[in-house]
Amino acid sequence: MENKTSCQEDDPVRVRKLEITDKDKGFVELLQQLTECNSISDHNFEERFRELSLYGDDHVICVIEDPIKKNKIIATGSVFIERKFIRNCGKVAHIEDIVVDSAARGMNLGKKIVGFLTDHAQSTGCYKVILDCSLENKTFYEKCGFKQKEIQMVRYFI
Amino acid sequence: MENKTSCQEDDPVRVRKLEITDKDKGFVELLQQLTECNSISDHNFEERFRELSLYGDDHVICVIEDPIKKNKIIATGSVFIERKFIRNCGKVAHIEDIVVDSAARGMNLGKKIVGFLTDHAQSTGCYKVILDCSLENKTFYEKCGFKQKEIQMVRYFI
Repeated sequence: MENKTSCQEDDPVRVRKLEITDKDKGFVELLQQLTECNSISDHNFEERFRELSLYGDDHVICVIEDPIKKNKIIATGSVFIERKFIRNCGKVAHIEDIVVDSAARGMNLGKKIVGFLTDHAQSTGCYKVILDCSLENKTFYEKCGFKQKEIQMVRYFI
Repeated sequence: MENKTSCQEDDPVRVRKLEITDKDKGFVELLQQLTECNSISDHNFEERFRELSLYGDDHVICVIEDPIKKNKIIATGSVFIERKFIRNCGKVAHIEDIVVDSAARGMNLGKKIVGFLTDHAQSTGCYKVILDCSLENKTFYEKCGFKQKEIQMVRYFI
C-alpha cells in the first residue's frame, strides 16, 4: 500500500516553483519536447517570468530538478486560477504544459507534478481543476484522479 | 452572402463589456441558466468585479442587452488570456461561461458573443483560442470556426 507521507520524506525528488535561473538548467529545452518553442532570449524570458510573477498564486509553474545530475530541469507543469461569478464567485484551476524529459519517464515525475499543481488548486480554494489532453494521455490523468468530461475545441490564428 | 460590416452597422444587437450595474439587469440570473450559481450579494459581486477589472484586457466578460426590453442581459461569455513560455512566449485565450437566455435562442446571439471574444483574443496577440464544451454543442462551435482537438479532464474538490 502506498504511503504518501512517509515516501515524501525520503524522496530525493522535490517539486518546487520555477526560478528565474532555471533557464540555464534546460527549462526551455524541456518545453521543446512538448511543442513548438524556439529558443528564448534572456530578456524575453525574464520579462515573461516577471509578468507571471505578478499573478502570485494565481499562476504557478513548478519544476523538478534531476536529483542526480543537478542543474537540469527534467519535469514541469503550470496551473492558473480563473475567478468566476458562477458557483458563488468560485475559482477554477487550469493545468497546462505538463512535460517530463523523455530520458526520465517511468519515474512517476508526471504524477508528482500534477499532484503539486492539484494541491495548489485545492489550497487556493478552487472548486475544481481542469485540463485538456490527448486521448492517449487519458489513462495517465485518470491515475491522477481526473475524469473525462467534455471536449476541447480550438481555433488557431497563425 | 453575409456581409458582416454592413450588417453590424444596422444591427440593434450590440456586444459590450460587463458593467458593474449589470447585476441589476439579470446578469446573475442569466448565469443560473448555465450552471449552479446562487444569488450573489452586492458586496461579493462588486468585489469579484473589481478583482477581474485588475486583469484589464487579460480577462474580459462581455454581454448583450435585450434590444427591445432594455435593462435585461440576455447573453454573456468570458475570455481570459494565459501567458506562456512556449510558442515564443506566446499567449492563449480561454473562452468560458457562454450562455444565451433560453427565451432569446435562435437569434445568433451566441455566435456574436463568441465572435466578440475571439476578436478580442486575436487583437491581443494570442496564437489560438480554446474552449471546452459538451459534444452536443460541438456543431455550434464549428460554425464559429472552431475544430475539435483534445479531451477535457476534470477533478472536483467539492
